[in-house]
Amino acid sequence: MKHFQRDMDNLQRHILSLSTMVEEMIDKATLALSDRRSDLVAEVIRGDEEVDRFEVRIEDECLKLLALHQPVAVDLRRIATVLKVNNDLERIADLAVSVAERAKAIHEFPDFPVPDQMDRMVVLTTQMVRGAMDSFVNLDSQAARRILRLDDDVDQHNREIIATLQGLMQEHSDLVPPALHCFSATRHIERMADHATNIAEDVIYLVEGDIVRHKKTVT
Amino acid sequence: MKHFQRDMDNLQRHILSLSTMVEEMIDKATLALSDRRSDLVAEVIRGDEEVDRFEVRIEDECLKLLALHQPVAVDLRRIATVLKVNNDLERIADLAVSVAERAKAIHEFPDFPVPDQMDRMVVLTTQMVRGAMDSFVNLDSQAARRILRLDDDVDQHNREIIATLQGLMQEHSDLVPPALHCFSATRHIERMADHATNIAEDVIYLVEGDIVRHKKTVT
Repeated sequence: MKHFQRDMDNLQRHILSLSTMVEEMIDKATLALSDRRSDLVAEVIRGDEEVDRFEVRIEDECLKLLALHQPVAVDLRRIATVLKVNNDLERIADLAVSVAERAKAIHEFPDFPVPDQMDRMVVLTTQMVRGAMDSFVNLDSQAARRILRLDDDVDQHNREIIATLQGLMQEHSDLVPPALHCFSATRHIERMADHATNIAEDVIYLVEGDIVRHKKTVT
Repeated sequence: MKHFQRDMDNLQRHILSLSTMVEEMIDKATLALSDRRSDLVAEVIRGDEEVDRFEVRIEDECLKLLALHQPVAVDLRRIATVLKVNNDLERIADLAVSVAERAKAIHEFPDFPVPDQMDRMVVLTTQMVRGAMDSFVNLDSQAARRILRLDDDVDQHNREIIATLQGLMQEHSDLVPPALHCFSATRHIERMADHATNIAEDVIYLVEGDIVRHKKTVT
């Protein structure tokens, strides 16, 4: 039993490290976009390779824990949650790569104004990822519920950005290509926030047994 | 051991039923888009509610199997794969809802021409989902590898559709709003194909132990 606790602590530490790596990738991808830092695109791609290896390792750790200690009830559910969170974090890293690639494409259009709200949307999204992971580590479902509310703010920013881009495209047909890249980047960021929401919902289910994940509607 | 086999067979049957439900949702969402069938939008949303309930049930089944039979090695990995496939199918259902919602928004613009390639892209995507599930049930990694190749065709359609939409937006600024909805729908379909790819990659890993999922680059 003592070994189980030690292995669980290790697993928790590893999933937190993975989260930190992913948060750094989000930051870099955003800087690539808003500050036109082309040099960061390659760094984000390298980060993703590291995240991919780490994800595989964590999944193996989970399966080994299951096979070795054959946990039941809450411990079993906790490991099942790590498997899901692991998956969500890896997808967020993929999305950071997608944002960085859109950033690179946008750099070819020096006249295109990246909407200001992008920055705020990303700050919120990073808060959501960090907060969701904290709620998981602390098994704090109240904190997890606060994350769900932040997602509404992200959606609001998203709508404003889309309206801005739509106006731009209608007035300047030459800006349609970069605006479409920016539109994609916005959707990618929105999806990162959705993954953070998934994590928070899994925490609520883990702690309270309440399935909130299917109560929201998808837009 | 006999009970374990029976429970595994049930689990397999359930995940296949889930897949069939999801494939029907994709069909309906596409008809809503290409044939302007507004009546199907509500059906897709109802389908998603059913899928959500089923997904939760399958996850519970997996956890019960783990707790009750404490499988190891290949059986353990197989159940872990069901957990992932379950998740992918549920996300595809969410995406079908998103496509149906975009279809509804596009219906308000009767003059907007939905690009022809959308239909072909969806046919391919449905083939990918069905094929990936078959490869899982048959533990056929060769079939799974064929699915990965189909994804390139989906990407090709996707690029053509985006080029068409871009041209439309540059020539007719009044069509920017519906074209953006259609652009979103295309991305949603592309993501469905990505989830089918995830399933195929998990099958290859399950059968061959080869991690292909992180070898492709994300676009």
